Amino acid sequence: MSKKIGIVGATGYTGVELLRLLVNHPGVTLSYVTSRENAGMRVDAMFPNLRGYVDLTFSTPSDEQLAECDLVFFATPNGVAMKSAQVLLDAGVKVIDLAADFRIKDIALWEKWYGMTHASPDLVAEAVYGLPELNRAAVQQARLVANPGCYPTAVTLGLLPLVENKLIDLQGIIADTKSGASGAGRKAEVATLLCEAGDSFKAYAVAGHRHQPEIAQTLSLMAGCPINPTFVPHLLPMIRGIHATLYAMLQEGSVDLQQLYQSRYAAEPFVDVMPAGSHPETRSVRGANFCRIAVHRPGNAERVVVLSVIDNLVKGAAGQAVQNMNLMLGFAEDTALRHPGLLP
Amino acid sequence: MSKKIGIVGATGYTGVELLRLLVNHPGVTLSYVTSRENAGMRVDAMFPNLRGYVDLTFSTPSDEQLAECDLVFFATPNGVAMKSAQVLLDAGVKVIDLAADFRIKDIALWEKWYGMTHASPDLVAEAVYGLPELNRAAVQQARLVANPGCYPTAVTLGLLPLVENKLIDLQGIIADTKSGASGAGRKAEVATLLCEAGDSFKAYAVAGHRHQPEIAQTLSLMAGCPINPTFVPHLLPMIRGIHATLYAMLQEGSVDLQQLYQSRYAAEPFVDVMPAGSHPETRSVRGANFCRIAVHRPGNAERVVVLSVIDNLVKGAAGQAVQNMNLMLGFAEDTALRHPGLLP
Amino acid sequence: MSKKIGIVGATGYTGVELLRLLVNHPGVTLSYVTSRENAGMRVDAMFPNLRGYVDLTFSTPSDEQLAECDLVFFATPNGVAMKSAQVLLDAGVKVIDLAADFRIKDIALWEKWYGMTHASPDLVAEAVYGLPELNRAAVQQARLVANPGCYPTAVTLGLLPLVENKLIDLQGIIADTKSGASGAGRKAEVATLLCEAGDSFKAYAVAGHRHQPEIAQTLSLMAGCPINPTFVPHLLPMIRGIHATLYAMLQEGSVDLQQLYQSRYAAEPFVDVMPAGSHPETRSVRGANFCRIAVHRPGNAERVVVLSVIDNLVKGAAGQAVQNMNLMLGFAEDTALRHPGLLP
Amino acid sequence: MSKKIGIVGATGYTGVELLRLLVNHPGVTLSYVTSRENAGMRVDAMFPNLRGYVDLTFSTPSDEQLAECDLVFFATPNGVAMKSAQVLLDAGVKVIDLAADFRIKDIALWEKWYGMTHASPDLVAEAVYGLPELNRAAVQQARLVANPGCYPTAVTLGLLPLVENKLIDLQGIIADTKSGASGAGRKAEVATLLCEAGDSFKAYAVAGHRHQPEIAQTLSLMAGCPINPTFVPHLLPMIRGIHATLYAMLQEGSVDLQQLYQSRYAAEPFVDVMPAGSHPETRSVRGANFCRIAVHRPGNAERVVVLSVIDNLVKGAAGQAVQNMNLMLGFAEDTALRHPGLLP
Repeated sequence: MSKKIGIVGATGYTGVELLRLLVNHPGVTLSYVTSRENAGMRVDAMFPNLRGYVDLTFSTPSDEQLAECDLVFFATPNGVAMKSAQVLLDAGVKVIDLAADFRIKDIALWEKWYGMTHASPDLVAEAVYGLPELNRAAVQQARLVANPGCYPTAVTLGLLPLVENKLIDLQGIIADTKSGASGAGRKAEVATLLCEAGDSFKAYAVAGHRHQPEIAQTLSLMAGCPINPTFVPHLLPMIRGIHATLYAMLQEGSVDLQQLYQSRYAAEPFVDVMPAGSHPETRSVRGANFCRIAVHRPGNAERVVVLSVIDNLVKGAAGQAVQNMNLMLGFAEDTALRHPGLLP
Repeated sequence: MSKKIGIVGATGYTGVELLRLLVNHPGVTLSYVTSRENAGMRVDAMFPNLRGYVDLTFSTPSDEQLAECDLVFFATPNGVAMKSAQVLLDAGVKVIDLAADFRIKDIALWEKWYGMTHASPDLVAEAVYGLPELNRAAVQQARLVANPGCYPTAVTLGLLPLVENKLIDLQGIIADTKSGASGAGRKAEVATLLCEAGDSFKAYAVAGHRHQPEIAQTLSLMAGCPINPTFVPHLLPMIRGIHATLYAMLQEGSVDLQQLYQSRYAAEPFVDVMPAGSHPETRSVRGANFCRIAVHRPGNAERVVVLSVIDNLVKGAAGQAVQNMNLMLGFAEDTALRHPGLLP
Repeated sequence: MSKKIGIVGATGYTGVELLRLLVNHPGVTLSYVTSRENAGMRVDAMFPNLRGYVDLTFSTPSDEQLAECDLVFFATPNGVAMKSAQVLLDAGVKVIDLAADFRIKDIALWEKWYGMTHASPDLVAEAVYGLPELNRAAVQQARLVANPGCYPTAVTLGLLPLVENKLIDLQGIIADTKSGASGAGRKAEVATLLCEAGDSFKAYAVAGHRHQPEIAQTLSLMAGCPINPTFVPHLLPMIRGIHATLYAMLQEGSVDLQQLYQSRYAAEPFVDVMPAGSHPETRSVRGANFCRIAVHRPGNAERVVVLSVIDNLVKGAAGQAVQNMNLMLGFAEDTALRHPGLLP
Repeated sequence: MSKKIGIVGATGYTGVELLRLLVNHPGVTLSYVTSRENAGMRVDAMFPNLRGYVDLTFSTPSDEQLAECDLVFFATPNGVAMKSAQVLLDAGVKVIDLAADFRIKDIALWEKWYGMTHASPDLVAEAVYGLPELNRAAVQQARLVANPGCYPTAVTLGLLPLVENKLIDLQGIIADTKSGASGAGRKAEVATLLCEAGDSFKAYAVAGHRHQPEIAQTLSLMAGCPINPTFVPHLLPMIRGIHATLYAMLQEGSVDLQQLYQSRYAAEPFVDVMPAGSHPETRSVRGANFCRIAVHRPGNAERVVVLSVIDNLVKGAAGQAVQNMNLMLGFAEDTALRHPGLLP
């Protein structure tokens, strides 16, 4: 029987991307798509790519209606899901939050970076960090999943084999990351106008970005010791795609990195280790749920350079959320996600 | 039983797009993917978006091997399919040519515009012009289909209800069309470098473009009299998408154009008539097989303005070819084509 | 002695472009640059390209201070200049409005299109429409100049030789126009985000656009009879540049259009008639004050197709305003405007 | 008296940019602009932005004619200037090579990276590396200047104050650099088509890039010891602009980096140290000869992150070449280079 799905806050880019992916999922039915601001508007009037696929109207969020769902996605700004999750969980609904409410285990740290008081710290402890490549079994059992940030997905998958095996100097990691503008969301702001963010390139938030503690937490758990990488994000003059260029110093020079990565990810449906010498392009994953990785050791020296690309709206958000949903609801993990990237 | 499919000349943008669409088609098997120049290379080495989906190597085209297929696509430059089609048809293989070899019925006209002698004029007479919205029944019976050009698809679908019903001055039609750069193909040329075609806009071929006689032929057949529209193409600083802005003078002012278009296309799976007052965006069909149309009558005067958008690589090429294949092989017409556009 | 210049509302794209052009003008001094919202902020903190060139802080607009200037530009939204112009004129200050307050002579028509009551209808009669190619002598004598709209500049210059000489059917003119996103201004709006306006193309305002009555007024005055062209604007996925594709029917076939255009514009410093058969690119005028025009007669038939390109922020706004300023203050017309376009 | 200038190989992007800058130089006359392939073609037919500014025709390169010049620029591929420079120098002509022929002092190293035998190793010793901020006095005296590479300019200016003062661990420097596509030149290649390089992002040449030894040489000379930075270039989906993100570990934590950079560059006309906390955008230097730099120390820790942007065609090529020319010929250093960047 088809599972009933709700999406809270579906007027942003992760919302429309969830809809794009779910319309072809054979095991689910879209029941409620909510928007406080646009209640009453047809979904396909806002997103005409969905004409013919989504015959729904945005409704005002209501806990009673959402409680009828089997699973609810929160594609809302930070701070929304933490207020409603408990009610839904109590009603037996599974919850995936695409925002940051349940990602950081240290409540004080979360409150510092996100500038608000956490409304349900108890649930933070329960929530599973939804990176299937790291926590697949836990996700399968979870009621509540914290869907990872876009940068943390690209960075963590890129570093995972090195950190798990402690092959590198854990204190000197650098993540130089670049994201398309859709990472900033569908908000009316001067900074992400075509005339401001187009045809130009810049770093931002060099002094500190919210995804740094998220990455630090995952890497530290993996290694069993505190890791505090240097994280510098940049804004690309394009819509979709993240490219992480990761730098670390090998502790011992004799490792076959290509073999290491291929082994680690051999069974993963959505991580693709490219042949040695490759340079993954963001367009190769445009619209697709893959993370493509290449490992380099220039001059065969101790410096390792990992290149990792994802589509920030898919593997970095909605696609990974659907992957988590598939695990939580018992579908094949790649259901509705078996599409090649759109190239060119 | 799965149908065997061959693609001749699969190293261009229509080739990779055919592959992207066909990998998820449940009724076909990709048997041969040929490239004279890149024989021996893995397909996914050239197109990394296909990694994990296409486990094939480009082979040198061979009529014997292609003759084992049920259907062969020619995604080749103009002038290739006309030399091989007869052999394949004789072997019982169905053929879809994505180039222009079989589009123009008047051989002398074709030879003038394409600058070569036609190698199989007899087949031109047999070939069905593969615009399903116009020739569905004939396509279903066809051995040989001439897949329409990208501009002609957008323009013809935009004008069809007006011309079929002779509601406009047939001699004053203007088609102001704009295309993304992928329409120029994957060829090493200065004119389509990012640094030449990016961040700029221009018209081209105002004196005459090969798609003008193709459009003229279809409209003339429709109307039963010669129509010779003014056709001006432009190059957009983006990869995919065609937007046709079509101008005509209504002969009688009392027609409900919105109703006319909706009725004409009500049963069409891939033509979407938008609500009155709409402005279709090319991104709403990015990667999708739709043609989205809006009809305007500014100031309710005699001038009608039709806006028609497609993805030139999908409904304008590979998607329409798959739609034709589905009709020719007896699959549901929308098999492997039920995907919303990628927005944003 | 250097002329004192003020700019009201210099935080938009026409404002920063005025500053970019004026910093190298040998005859003027920037005295006041105002912004109600950003008063107190350094100009080069908002626009870092001006670092080292503009050592000014945005000030709150004050009529007393502005009255000390020789000339004041209004780079404000519509409806601002009409409230302050009289005071400044009375104080002997010359005024150039880059908005639409003084462009339309018919006050009722203006009020209909701009949705407000006009604050100084008397000045509308006095204001000179600042298209130097049409009104050079009047601009030289003017106290108050209405700087033309961007689309009207490209369209009018493209049609001028045909309309002045009544060579075409004046009732069937079509202007299919395309503009970069900077024409929409530096405003926080979802519609012009990189993720909305980038990598896509669409028409807008097909039912009616404010620049249509402005174009109609100029052409009608030129021809001495009412002209009401069809005007369809489109949004280009790039920052700067307008391309107008203009369609008309020749009344008599024997005219040498190339010669006509070359003669008409032979003495114009900023209109460049390209060789027959050319296709002007918007990038050829990027950052430059030129209008580049090519005239076509496909198939040597009665249909004439004119291609006209400008940079909407330069010849379509700030550059033309400086050109007008040069005329009004007695400088050489091309002072500070002798720069080639930025290509690539 | 005006100096006579020749440009050899002016059909690429550095060539057209030299022309754009030199047309407004009051002290020089463009005498010869050569192109073996396009001899006889008008320069402004290839580059229409120069219409009205350059009334020249490409001529076949001839040493006799070039010998009449006061200074000759080589905007040619690598390996051309080294064959002609001696003849011109013997004739008293000054030479600036925008390619790499005279940049690397170690001939064997050069031959390894550039894959050819050097034709005039003696001149390599004489040539001055034309980074005015480092070698101003030498440039003023030079007959032969090796104009620096684009990446080396951005990286070297970004690191110079740290390396000169040996404030950092010299062995752990990382330069993560990103360039617009014009860095690849105006060559017909699939890899830099709009449809390949547009709307995507990737690293390239991670195993090794020719600009690495150039950077290493300059930094090593500065520090007096061998420095071998990790250098990873990336391709941006835009035309102009380089952004270098530079990582190093401070040796002692007490330095005021902001003060250090401001002091070092206080007298430099084309290096702009931005306020603490800034993120320079490439668009702020679009078309301009500036290098804009910001220095960060995230969390006030030992890791320093320097952001450095240039326009690769201006400060990274043609603009720096004109700056060098001004020094060599005795003009004010900023002649013809006093233009703000084009923003937006």
